[in-house]
Amino acid sequence: MDTNKKVSVVVDAMGGDFAPVNEIAGAIMACKEKGDALKIILTGKEEILKKELSKQNAAGDIEIVNAGEVVTMEDSPTDVYKSKPNSSINVGLALLKEKKADAFISAGNTGAVMAASTLKLGRIKGVGRPTIGSIFPTDKRKVMVFDVGASVDCKPMHLKEFAIMGTIYMEHIFGVKNPSVGLLSVGEEKEKGNELTFEAYELLEKSGLNFFGNVEGRDVLNGKVDLIVCDGFVGNIILKFAEGVLDLLKAKFRSYADKSFGNKLWMGMIQGTLRAILKDFDYQEYGGVPLLGVDGVSIIGHGKSSPLAIRNMIYRAEEVVRKDVCGKIREEINK
Amino acid sequence: MDTNKKVSVVVDAMGGDFAPVNEIAGAIMACKEKGDALKIILTGKEEILKKELSKQNAAGDIEIVNAGEVVTMEDSPTDVYKSKPNSSINVGLALLKEKKADAFISAGNTGAVMAASTLKLGRIKGVGRPTIGSIFPTDKRKVMVFDVGASVDCKPMHLKEFAIMGTIYMEHIFGVKNPSVGLLSVGEEKEKGNELTFEAYELLEKSGLNFFGNVEGRDVLNGKVDLIVCDGFVGNIILKFAEGVLDLLKAKFRSYADKSFGNKLWMGMIQGTLRAILKDFDYQEYGGVPLLGVDGVSIIGHGKSSPLAIRNMIYRAEEVVRKDVCGKIREEINK
Repeated sequence: MDTNKKVSVVVDAMGGDFAPVNEIAGAIMACKEKGDALKIILTGKEEILKKELSKQNAAGDIEIVNAGEVVTMEDSPTDVYKSKPNSSINVGLALLKEKKADAFISAGNTGAVMAASTLKLGRIKGVGRPTIGSIFPTDKRKVMVFDVGASVDCKPMHLKEFAIMGTIYMEHIFGVKNPSVGLLSVGEEKEKGNELTFEAYELLEKSGLNFFGNVEGRDVLNGKVDLIVCDGFVGNIILKFAEGVLDLLKAKFRSYADKSFGNKLWMGMIQGTLRAILKDFDYQEYGGVPLLGVDGVSIIGHGKSSPLAIRNMIYRAEEVVRKDVCGKIREEINK
Repeated sequence: MDTNKKVSVVVDAMGGDFAPVNEIAGAIMACKEKGDALKIILTGKEEILKKELSKQNAAGDIEIVNAGEVVTMEDSPTDVYKSKPNSSINVGLALLKEKKADAFISAGNTGAVMAASTLKLGRIKGVGRPTIGSIFPTDKRKVMVFDVGASVDCKPMHLKEFAIMGTIYMEHIFGVKNPSVGLLSVGEEKEKGNELTFEAYELLEKSGLNFFGNVEGRDVLNGKVDLIVCDGFVGNIILKFAEGVLDLLKAKFRSYADKSFGNKLWMGMIQGTLRAILKDFDYQEYGGVPLLGVDGVSIIGHGKSSPLAIRNMIYRAEEVVRKDVCGKIREEINK
């Protein structure tokens, strides 16, 4: 696209656990820093958003489009698309469909955003299942796992699609040339796996991608490959397990500190170091990840997204638009 | 069994990465501490074992049964049962089959030990698939996940069997009364999951077990339930992922220390604290876990098992024998 043209990003301002405060704070931050390149459209209850905007002394190119309904974390992802047609999610995605905006971001109900994005934007021709990837920290490089929950029951063909879309994303967004692709399984050898991976292995071998072979659970964290594919059931479980690791470490630190006053003082002294070392485990830091395979840019973030995470999601959305990731998927998937 | 009778435990002395040194050290430790209750039989190359026993000044009730072949980590689990009939694994399990010993432990090739145990000992009548569980650390209690790799492709019925066998194990070995059972899935609601979990949910609901419902990846580490069931593909991936967490943390600590001399000194000061806090993540500490559902006691340990881990495996084996876990599974599984 024209590099001088502003990218307009719709922010679901009612989405996250701290909406609309963090959403608006993130939007204001983005406008201040990159006002020349960005236009922000907030969807949500107009009155609430107006009040919050003035409270936070908003400046920059921020517009509100009213959406009378709010999707909660309790809403069923599949039902809510129809039961709340005027939700901030539906209204936001409609703006993309009508070409009134370039991208959509939300820290709201992940399942609802995925379902609505797929239904409203449609799939790119040739894509059987959309996929959402997540970044895992390693000591060497960023590793992305596709899929982490968009498509729970997969056929071998879908894993190949994830590998193609993930490869494009890593090449163009992270600048990783010809990223290596691993197939998540229970052993390195080709013979190890389940029914799904045996067939997926064959497809990936012939795909023309930089296929490494099988990788194991531990390889998600050791940076053996750039990109790992698995069905969304397995991927979602390891993603949430990884989130649980940070919570457990924090709990362990707390109980250690609670044991004695000496421990408490000592933990106070070392906690800055621990925080620096464990920062990579904090999933909020990464901002959002795009739902790939839908015909438009839809970025999904963590419910607990901070203003900084929201800002990062907006920047990610801009980048995915400017680099035309959707167009590249359209080209590659039908080769 | 008669509490005065010695339990005889066969130790695969050629199994682990540090065999036979750690195996023999662990066996000697166990004999010194509990010589009245235990008899140890080592299987492996007689000459090598004799030499190592005298080098380590062995004492106590330790016998050697010669086994001319050694299974390596490279051997295919299914092939090696036939291709190396005189392996330390096969010879050891034969002693159980012939009632010359009560239990078998090995830190060797996990797949080979599982396959040989199933083939040599047979399954308990009514068990479709044997299962191996793993303990995960939480801040509240020990959580066990079944299956972590014995049965990769599972039917809903098999997950129910894992829940029954796991319940018996937790009740009798860990003393957890009526342990709560969670079904690993991608959401807490009954409607969230894949084809396998939908059906397994129905079976578990009607099982008479203390079924909690679905749990997510993060719940493995937060102690929401005592026992979590999943197929061996998913379980193996999260187990190895968890092992990867400790490796990554160690790597992070190292790179932090390498940044400056000051950091290095500081990490030196705090590493004792970190080690104490992270101890629970170290899978070697737990010793082994039994393969449940086979008609005999077979305990499998980590390849890198220390002498202490080997000793703990021997004690675990003794406990599983004395509490007649196999007999209890036989009773419950056919109800």
